[in-house]
Formats: sequence, structure tokens, C-alpha cells
Amino acid sequence: MKKNHTDMNRNKVLLTASISLLLWAASGYADSRCEIAFPDIAGYTTLKCDFHMHTVFSDGKVWPDVRVEEAWREGLDAIAITDHIEYLPHKGDIPKNLDRPFEIAGKKAEELGILLIKGAEMTFDTPPGHFNAIFVQDIAALEAKVLLDEAKNAHQQGGFIFWNHPDWQGHEKGQWIDLYTTMVQDGLMNGIEICNGSAYYSRAHQWCLEKNLTMVGNTDIHGPSMRLANTDKDHRTMTLVFAKEKSLAAIKEALQNGRTAVWCEDKLIGKKEFLEPLFYASVTIQNPLPSNNDIVVDLHNRSEISITLDRKGDTGPKTIVLGAKGTTRVKFPLQTEPFVYTVKNFLIAPEKGLPIKLDISTVFSGKTK
Amino acid sequence: MKKNHTDMNRNKVLLTASISLLLWAASGYADSRCEIAFPDIAGYTTLKCDFHMHTVFSDGKVWPDVRVEEAWREGLDAIAITDHIEYLPHKGDIPKNLDRPFEIAGKKAEELGILLIKGAEMTFDTPPGHFNAIFVQDIAALEAKVLLDEAKNAHQQGGFIFWNHPDWQGHEKGQWIDLYTTMVQDGLMNGIEICNGSAYYSRAHQWCLEKNLTMVGNTDIHGPSMRLANTDKDHRTMTLVFAKEKSLAAIKEALQNGRTAVWCEDKLIGKKEFLEPLFYASVTIQNPLPSNNDIVVDLHNRSEISITLDRKGDTGPKTIVLGAKGTTRVKFPLQTEPFVYTVKNFLIAPEKGLPIKLDISTVFSGKTK
Amino acid sequence: MKKNHTDMNRNKVLLTASISLLLWAASGYADSRCEIAFPDIAGYTTLKCDFHMHTVFSDGKVWPDVRVEEAWREGLDAIAITDHIEYLPHKGDIPKNLDRPFEIAGKKAEELGILLIKGAEMTFDTPPGHFNAIFVQDIAALEAKVLLDEAKNAHQQGGFIFWNHPDWQGHEKGQWIDLYTTMVQDGLMNGIEICNGSAYYSRAHQWCLEKNLTMVGNTDIHGPSMRLANTDKDHRTMTLVFAKEKSLAAIKEALQNGRTAVWCEDKLIGKKEFLEPLFYASVTIQNPLPSNNDIVVDLHNRSEISITLDRKGDTGPKTIVLGAKGTTRVKFPLQTEPFVYTVKNFLIAPEKGLPIKLDISTVFSGKTK
Amino acid sequence: MKKNHTDMNRNKVLLTASISLLLWAASGYADSRCEIAFPDIAGYTTLKCDFHMHTVFSDGKVWPDVRVEEAWREGLDAIAITDHIEYLPHKGDIPKNLDRPFEIAGKKAEELGILLIKGAEMTFDTPPGHFNAIFVQDIAALEAKVLLDEAKNAHQQGGFIFWNHPDWQGHEKGQWIDLYTTMVQDGLMNGIEICNGSAYYSRAHQWCLEKNLTMVGNTDIHGPSMRLANTDKDHRTMTLVFAKEKSLAAIKEALQNGRTAVWCEDKLIGKKEFLEPLFYASVTIQNPLPSNNDIVVDLHNRSEISITLDRKGDTGPKTIVLGAKGTTRVKFPLQTEPFVYTVKNFLIAPEKGLPIKLDISTVFSGKTK
Repeated sequence: MKKNHTDMNRNKVLLTASISLLLWAASGYADSRCEIAFPDIAGYTTLKCDFHMHTVFSDGKVWPDVRVEEAWREGLDAIAITDHIEYLPHKGDIPKNLDRPFEIAGKKAEELGILLIKGAEMTFDTPPGHFNAIFVQDIAALEAKVLLDEAKNAHQQGGFIFWNHPDWQGHEKGQWIDLYTTMVQDGLMNGIEICNGSAYYSRAHQWCLEKNLTMVGNTDIHGPSMRLANTDKDHRTMTLVFAKEKSLAAIKEALQNGRTAVWCEDKLIGKKEFLEPLFYASVTIQNPLPSNNDIVVDLHNRSEISITLDRKGDTGPKTIVLGAKGTTRVKFPLQTEPFVYTVKNFLIAPEKGLPIKLDISTVFSGKTK
Repeated sequence: MKKNHTDMNRNKVLLTASISLLLWAASGYADSRCEIAFPDIAGYTTLKCDFHMHTVFSDGKVWPDVRVEEAWREGLDAIAITDHIEYLPHKGDIPKNLDRPFEIAGKKAEELGILLIKGAEMTFDTPPGHFNAIFVQDIAALEAKVLLDEAKNAHQQGGFIFWNHPDWQGHEKGQWIDLYTTMVQDGLMNGIEICNGSAYYSRAHQWCLEKNLTMVGNTDIHGPSMRLANTDKDHRTMTLVFAKEKSLAAIKEALQNGRTAVWCEDKLIGKKEFLEPLFYASVTIQNPLPSNNDIVVDLHNRSEISITLDRKGDTGPKTIVLGAKGTTRVKFPLQTEPFVYTVKNFLIAPEKGLPIKLDISTVFSGKTK
Repeated sequence: MKKNHTDMNRNKVLLTASISLLLWAASGYADSRCEIAFPDIAGYTTLKCDFHMHTVFSDGKVWPDVRVEEAWREGLDAIAITDHIEYLPHKGDIPKNLDRPFEIAGKKAEELGILLIKGAEMTFDTPPGHFNAIFVQDIAALEAKVLLDEAKNAHQQGGFIFWNHPDWQGHEKGQWIDLYTTMVQDGLMNGIEICNGSAYYSRAHQWCLEKNLTMVGNTDIHGPSMRLANTDKDHRTMTLVFAKEKSLAAIKEALQNGRTAVWCEDKLIGKKEFLEPLFYASVTIQNPLPSNNDIVVDLHNRSEISITLDRKGDTGPKTIVLGAKGTTRVKFPLQTEPFVYTVKNFLIAPEKGLPIKLDISTVFSGKTK
Repeated sequence: MKKNHTDMNRNKVLLTASISLLLWAASGYADSRCEIAFPDIAGYTTLKCDFHMHTVFSDGKVWPDVRVEEAWREGLDAIAITDHIEYLPHKGDIPKNLDRPFEIAGKKAEELGILLIKGAEMTFDTPPGHFNAIFVQDIAALEAKVLLDEAKNAHQQGGFIFWNHPDWQGHEKGQWIDLYTTMVQDGLMNGIEICNGSAYYSRAHQWCLEKNLTMVGNTDIHGPSMRLANTDKDHRTMTLVFAKEKSLAAIKEALQNGRTAVWCEDKLIGKKEFLEPLFYASVTIQNPLPSNNDIVVDLHNRSEISITLDRKGDTGPKTIVLGAKGTTRVKFPLQTEPFVYTVKNFLIAPEKGLPIKLDISTVFSGKTK
């Protein structure tokens, strides 16, 4: 009947608004964001970033805006959505449209204040394997038959390119090959994912140091993220980017200049020039109480990571654990020289912790707060 | 070049397998299922079901198989995927294909042993509003211009039909209308969703009792579920179905005969004939210790819900809280008559708790273990 | 045998040191302190205090230094140990020694930087009931046959005196009696415990406002504290003291001048002159994103308490919940006047929330960060 | 005045009752017990026990009845309170009274149904070190100048004696000495604490196997226990005792015959004859789904410990983790022979996991449920 038909159309218009409201109520999304506590270091703001994730538009399991909501909730500053170019198992249901995830997620990113980076995973069998190109303009235009051509296209678009999960298919397939040397020389490999999810690739870590490549660490998440917040016990693998400001351009500049560290499981991995100021910005010595030959102080760790100190000198406790965002009360012998320790879980090279000094005497003498 | 092209095709074949492995590792899905502890009641097995949820194929945010993985992880026995028939905001990206979510999720359901029910949400402006048809065969064939016709189609396919979130757009729009009376008479409305997410509709609860309609409670989830397990503090709204066995046919038979209860927030809602045996199957009295005029006993609650007892008789503690899956030590005066209580959070009608008796003397005299 | 005897003595000396080390390892104490996030308000530092707790020296269950370790771990600045003077159920095992708990705990308090206040609970049947005297010098010298005499002794020692759990034995026994009027006039009742554990006494709240008495809230804890940290979901009842500095003298001065607020369950209770600046110091408006007729902003709540806003004006969302230490994204209509709300869970009188205004336009126009 | 004095006495009587009620409300104790899920094994009930803990009567931090409340809350069946005989740092405040903690705790143990074992720690410098005597009658009568004499006294009282934390003061001091050989021969050392708190002593584990000594694992807790329940992530170190029934006599008999296993961190340690049936009682194979050359099954682990399987045969997944009280879905190739694995975290000797077989074919063929 005519009347019904017209009614139905009107109904559908009304419906759209009301279902959106229902959605909001029924979605189950956490509606609160928790910041991640890493201090800024001199001259740079410390941004929390994840440069590798998937949506239903390749082989992921969520609609693109979910990635933005997850990032907001978990305290990230920036993410790159990086669906596969060559691997599209859902294409029978979702026709190929490589630039579309970025469009969908973009609206939500603007609303929530998340910096959204356009990216794609160039997906070839190993070797050469998978590479992410981020900060690109037109993903459809990247596609080529071989990795080298795709990477060139990405480079021409101003993209930042890194090798993903280098050990993924085992040590054998993850060897350094001549193609990679060429790519580095031509600016087609600017970094390596030294951590992917819970995996840490010590060999890739070494390559980054030797070849001056930027270290990144990402989730490569396909399913939904189940986290309400990032804590030291359970957090995303992420890249800390030491940027001149919070902007897309500043993140790109920092990546191009290697100013990153990777937070993976209980470890922070990066160059000494960044981990050292991050340590001293995180840990403060307070409330000294001298007594006879000893002094007891608060070591306050304002960062999100639990820090483990191993004694390298002759004095001081053998091991000190500074819980994330907590204060630990520690007794030292009274002495004027600083105490020499290694931060066991701040890796400046494979199996090499960051050397630091705790200068208790300055606190005691009242020079420092 | 030819060679490269061929290589790439081969590569893509290899790729599919290896990415699946990577996916598994990187997915972040919990890989363990936690059972929900509600006991069976005489003659029936207690199945945990959710009959209302969405995927990217209508306005949900996840790929259909995610719904099955969530259900498995959270301890459900059966789910219905019920994407909207009339509301398809993603259709520009995912062409309309109403029966497709069931196909995709079906493989995962078989793998994980979840009973998957084919369903759809018949979506019209309020009133008449939204109705779920579950246990249908061909969703595309349901579509019609008005609700009544769609419901008839569903009924002809053997579907079980219930009115969704009756208070959704407010009390005004949620009034009982003549159309509903007709639908009930013609077997086109078999139940009502008395709980949707965290909302409980007391008026709908009353209607179910008066009109002998089946009570169901569901999540209506659109986004990803963030739960690792269902606990008394944080759980899905769900329908407990008292079925003759764990099978699709048995669930349908139980729904048709009104054998359900709804677990929503801290409440269990259902007919007295089911809540009463569920209470006695959940709570046992153990380890009596008499002393002078008192007796101390363990009240053990083996169910997943925390149970609050309010005293109705003259004796016994005023309030007793039996934590979920826990044991509470309680002191009673020595007497031969049972203690009279109301289970405050087991609702047999709006604002009416289930009356029960605690017969401590049987334990004391050694009749019961 | 001689030799053995000598050996044993030496052994015992060595033992003391080594057992202490073992103790440390086996104690199970959390070794990290978590700060409680309430901001300072203009001119005052916000100290977190608990002025009522017990040890094995009266009817508590823990050794006195445990109270200090709990306070440190849970982020408190100051505590008073207040064992009963008249109620000593353990005296058969622990001979009466009223000033001893303070001595034992004092060493640990100095080590951990907790301000430890000497106190006692003057314990008489209700009415008059129980009163705490804190900041006293000599507890043994307080003892007298009636409350009035004990309170006079405490007053002469410079003590601050407050009435404990005024409703404890029911409304009947918790009436205001003439003796209390006398005590207030003579400076023998300086405050009232408006919250004790999870109980809030609205009548006592009103008395504090009418009679200009200081509001305090405490745990009255007897058993061990099971908390690793204070969060909005699970925290000690405590008194926030707005002190000129972090010192015992400054806390006493603030108490004498009524500069407190009480954090109990999900409520903050205090005078408007303190809750108002605390709200504005806690909540900031950030990251405005205008669009058409709306503006979306981040409301960031840096405090430890979740804040619930109810709309009092005509515009803005009806209810806004600002999670503890979280950021909430909220949409407002574009307007130049501020939005008018009540902080539902900041009580400036019984059942009366704090009125506040949200001035979104200043953020939008760029005046504020 | 006379009148006041009399009043005060009456008041104190009334007070006792009313403060007890207050205590209950303010104590903060969890009032619910959580059972620990380890299945019984053929012929024996699996009891959860902790045979080493301290109270304020030696160097512990809590009143004795707290130990019973902790045990009840955490799901234990039996505990021994074992204060030091020779090390009494609180004796200035609590005059020596070695048998008193047992008296105080006994009332609470009866009330809560916890089996309370009388014990003491015979405390001598290392070597010989500390030994617990449990199931003794009169602790004051044990005291002697040297360990050997105390152990003889304990033995005469029918006590079960074990060496505590054998590596406590380092490997050097924890050597096996001739005295121990004598003690074993004379029945004065019946077991060794192979785990104390989070420490596992592999050398002691080996000694137990070689010398046929009973393995025990305990907390040696001094401070309050902060746990609400025992889970696989955070639990007491405890001794599982395979007893003929739940009684003190049956526990003693089981200890004398070496029927124990120790649960420490993520490991279960014991003789193969007990760990093997415990594994098979914990893990069941369910819901087989064959497809082509594979079969997918649920491996359900009903125990409280997460179980890690390492493949020893040629087929099956390399590693399988069966979460505590959870179900894991696993794919195996179709074959008739069982799959050969080692339970990595069930130690039947130092660094030697329990070998087991998974016979999937029986499930598939329908022989097993």
C-alpha cells in the first residue's frame, strides 16, 4: 500500500538518528581516556604511537573507526592504519578500496583528537616480506608487482618505510639480503619494526644501530583491542616518538631523524641518547632521612614502566625495582660518590642495559628538592 | 616482468597460510574460555544465550566471526546474530547480503562448538519498533514494507519473534498498541526483551507475566566486547534457557514454552517456577557448628551471581549476602523452623523478590551433607 | 654443655639480623607507594589523612608499625593511631601500656616519611560515646572516670577532640545531648566524624555546618588493610586537610580552623569554600573542536574521584561523568554563556551538591589552554 | 564519685558487645571464602595447607586469629601457626607464652571450620638453621639449648619435623651436614620445605627424592596476607596434601607417608605418582570436531593452575597452554596413537617435567564423554 511505503521511507530517515543514539548506549566502549605517563625529554614532547594495524578492509576484524576509539581510550597520540595492499581475504564481501579505511576513521580521529596517519602494508612473501609505508597520500597508486616498485612509489609520495616483523617466518627467512641494502641506500627502508606485538627481534635491534635505521614497535593488531588502558602489566607495544610538537609533520620529522624508543612488554628499547634523559626525567630522589651511616630516600618513578636497577658499583642495594608511577623507599650507605647502576630493562643495544648514576648526596645536602 | 608476476601469485598463495598464523599470534584474543556457573535445574540443562547482536554487515563494528569468538571466550552456549534488515549504514562499502554474516560466523561456530542461530532485526520506526526474528531460514526472503508482513514471513519460516528494547524511545513511544495484541494472537510476537544491555524494563516484565510471553535479555552489542569472562561484577546481559538438551532444537522448544530467566546487572529475572529451583540448586548449607543457643553454618553459593537475602521472618540476620561462587559463614539462632527470607535480586515480578526458606535444622541434625 | 650454651647466645645475636632480612622477603608487603591524586588549592597543600585506627594494643589485629606501612603504601600523608583507653581485650597478653603503640610505630613513620600523630579513643558507653583525642602528649595521663574529665585532660595537652561515629548505635542513641553543647562551648569537641568506614552520617554533617565544627572522616580500621592503593572504586575513607605545609603543626592548625573535606565511597563532603576550588583545580577543558552549532571538548579530571555532573541550566548534556584521572569527550551546543551544573557527589550540605559552571567559550576563543 | 565509677564498669560490659559489632563492620575482612580448585585423586582428598606462619607472639605482625581468617578467605583447609621458640622480638610488650597463639586462633578456627595445627619454629643459627615441628602438644616443653634436643622433644610429642628454607642464607650455609643425616636416621627430620614464599630450592627437591623426605611448601608469612583469593596469577605457596579424609589425623598420616605436592608460583612440584593422577583428574578432552585430516577438541583444565605442555612426540602443536579453570580449543592431526607431551610446570624432579599422553582418539571414537 502506498501509505505504508511512504511511511517506511520516513521511518528510515528517523531511524538513522535514533539508532545512532542506541548504538552509543549499547556499544560498550569505555568512554574515558587514560593518559600514558612518559615524561617529555629536553626539547621534545614524548608522543605514544602505533604504526601498524588492520581493519576489515584487509584481514582485520573491526571497522576502521574502532581503531581510533581504541587509540583514544588507551592514551595514544597517533596511529597509522595499515591494511594490506595485496592480501584482501574479505574482498568478496568488501570490494577493494584501499584508501577507504582512512576516510572512515578520519572523521572519528578528528572528533577524538587522534593524529591519524595514512598507511599501507606492502605484502610480499618472505623474503623480502612485509613493509609498511606510512605518511603516504594515495594507497591505490602504490600498488606494483614487486616490493621495490611499491616502495619507490611510496618514497615518491613522501612516505616513511619500515620493514615489518623481520623474524616472522623464522631466522632463516629473516636474513639480511642484498635487496635490503639497496633499499636502505635508496631511502626505501627507513626503519625496522624491532618489536611486533610481544615479539622482540634482537637481531633487528642490532641492524638499526649499525645501519642507523629508525626503531619502531607496533601491535600489528587484527582483532579488537581488549584493553581499557595501558599499564606496565598489560600494554600495547608502541613507539615513543620524541617530536618537536604534537603534529603529523613533527612525528614524520622525528621518525626520519630516528628519535624513537620502543616499549615492548617490560622493556624500553632505544638509543642511549633518548633512554638516558627519559630515565632521569622519570626518576626523582626525595625525602632523604640520614641515620648514622645510612640514608633512606624515596625513589619516585613517574613513568608508566616499572624500572629495574642492577648494581654495577660496590655499594648500594643489589637490585632496586621502581614500580610504575610509584615510590620506592631505599636505604643507601652514606657516601659522597654517586651509586652506579644499570637499568636492566632499558636496552641501548641487545642485552645491554642503560648505565646510570644515582647521586644521593645532592638530595642529602639539600641542593635538590 | 612475467617472472615476477608468477612469483607474486605464488607468493600470495603462500601468504594466505602464513598470515593466518601471524594473525593468531597478533590477534590479542583470549585463547581460553571461562564457563558461567549456573547450575542445571531438575530436568533441564541451563544454557547461557544472547539473542541480539550486530556485525559490520549492518551497523555493528566487528566481523561476524568475532561474535562467535566473544561468545566462546565468555562462556556462552548459543548466540543469534541479528543484523538489521532495513538499516545498513555500511552498504556503500559492504553490498547488501543479509544472509552472509551467518555464513561467515558459521565456520567459526562449528570450530568452537557454539550454537549459532540465524536471526535478523526487523527494523521499523517506533511504534511498532524493532523486533528480532530468530531461528529463521532465509533472511532475504523476510523483507517486506511493514512489520506485520515481515513477522508473518518469519513465522512461516518457523521463526521465534520478540519485541526489542520496548522502552527504547521512552515510555510514550513504548506503549502497548493494538498491533501488538494482534501479533500476540497470531503468534507473531512470542516474547519481549525485558532487558537490553544494562536497561531493565519493568513494564515489559509485567506484560510477559500477563500475556504469557517469553522473557529474553540480550546485549544488542554493536562494538567489540571487552570482557575476558563473565563475572557477577561485569557480565553480559543474557538469557538463561532451561533446555532439554544442548541443541538448537532444544533452545527453540524452550523459548516457545517460556522456560527462560534473564541475568541483567545484579538481578536475575524470571518466573517463580524457574528461579526457585535455581536458587535451591545454587545454595547449599554446610559445616554446621552449634554452640549454646546459636548455630554457625557455611552458606555456599555455587552460582555466578551474588545473592542478597532479606529477612521476612522474625529470626536470622537481617540481610545476608552470598557472594558469587563463594562461601559465607552465617550465625543463626537454634530453632527447628526454617528461616524465612526473600531473595531481593531474584525478581519473580516487578519489585517482587523470590520467597525462600533456609532449613538449617536439617543440616544440624545430619540429614544433609 | 657450656659450649653449646655460648654458641646459642652468639647464634641468637646473629639470628636477629638475618631474620630481619628474611622477614623483608617473606612479608608480602607491597614495596611501592601510590600517590592519591587530589590537587592542591590556592594557598594550601592537600594532605590525605586518617585520624582513627587501632592496633593489637587495644582491639586491633595488627602490630602498630603495620598501620604506618599501610598508610605509606596507600598514599596517605598522616595518620593518628588511636587505641582505646578503656577497652583493652588483649590485656591478658599485652599488659596495658597506652603510649606504647606510638613508640613502636614512630620508628617506621620516620623511616617512611609518614606524619604520625599521637592519639587515643576515649571510650564510654553511648551516650556520650566514643571521642578521639589527637595531638596529645601523654595518653596515660588522660585517663579519667568520665568523658568530660578525659576530654579536659586532652584539651590541656593541646589535643584536638572529635566525636566518633555519632550514629553508631542507632539514631536514638546518637541524639545531640546537653553534654555535647557544653563540650563545644568549652573547646572539648572540635569536630565530628561525619564518615566512619563506609557510613556517612548526614545529621552529623548538618551539625558540623550549624555549630562550626570540623568535619573528619576516617577508617576506624581494626584488621589489616587489604588495599594496594586507593582508587575511586575502592579507597579508604579519609580526611583531606588543606594545610599551609606538610607538617604536624600545619595539620593541627588546619583542623582547628575547619579546613577539611571528607572522601567517603563515591562522595566528597565539605564546605563550599573548599570543594569549589578543588573542583576547578581538578577539571580542565581542552582540545575544543567546533562544528556547525556544536563544540566537542575534552573534560579532563586529574583527581582521584569520579565526578558526576547534573545539568541545572537549559543546555548541555543531562548528565556528565568524569572518570577519575581520565578524560571524557563531551559535545556542547555553541553558546557564549557558561553551562550550569551541580556536582552531584560533592556535598556542601546534606543532599546538596556543589553548583559549578563550565565556561566552554573561553577554551574555544583560545583564552585558556 | 561512686555513681560514675559503677556506671563506668557497667559501661565497659556493654561496650564489649557493641565494639565487637563495630569491629565486624569496620574490619575490612572479606566475608566470603573462595575454594581452590584442585581435584581429588583416586582414594585421596586433596587438602590445601600452609604449615609455616607467624603472629605477633614471635616476629609476625598480626594477632593469631587473623591467620585463621586469611586461611578461610583464601580457601585453605589447614594451617599450622609456627611462631619462633628462640626469637621473640616483641617479648618486652608480649611476655613469652609459647602455646598462647594456638589458644587464641583455636576459637576462630573452630568457628570457621579450619583445621588448626599446633606448631613452632625451632630457631637456631645456620647451620643447622630453622626447623618446624608441627602436630606437637606442648611447645613450652620443646625448648632446649640445641636443635637436636628440641627435635627429640618434638619427636617424643609425636611431631612432624621439617627443615625450613634450606637455602635461606645462601648455598654455602645450606649444605647438607652430618647432623642432618643423623636427624633423618632418627626420625627427627621428616621433610624439607622445598619452597618458601616465592623461592624454590632445587637442591632440596633433589634431597627429598633421594632421602625419601616429604616435600612441603609454605608461605612463612609474617605480615598480613593481602589476598582475597588464590588464583593462578597470585597465590600462596602451599602444600597439597593427599589425605584419606579431611581431618588433622589424616593430614599427619599423609605427611608421614610423603603424600604431598607443592604449589609455588607457576609450578607444581611433587612425586610422579601424585602429579600424574592430578594431571589426568584436572584435564579432560571434550567436544571433538573432526575435519579432513584434523580434529579440533576442547582441552578443559578444571584445576587452579595454568598448565603448559611441551611436545615430546612428532605430532601435535609444539606448545599448549591450558589456562586455569578454562577451556582451550586445540587442533590435532587425526591419528590413532596418543600425543606425547611433557607438562613443563609439573616438576617430578629438578628441571624434569611430568610426561603425559593425550589420547584424542578415544574422545573421537566416542568412548569418552
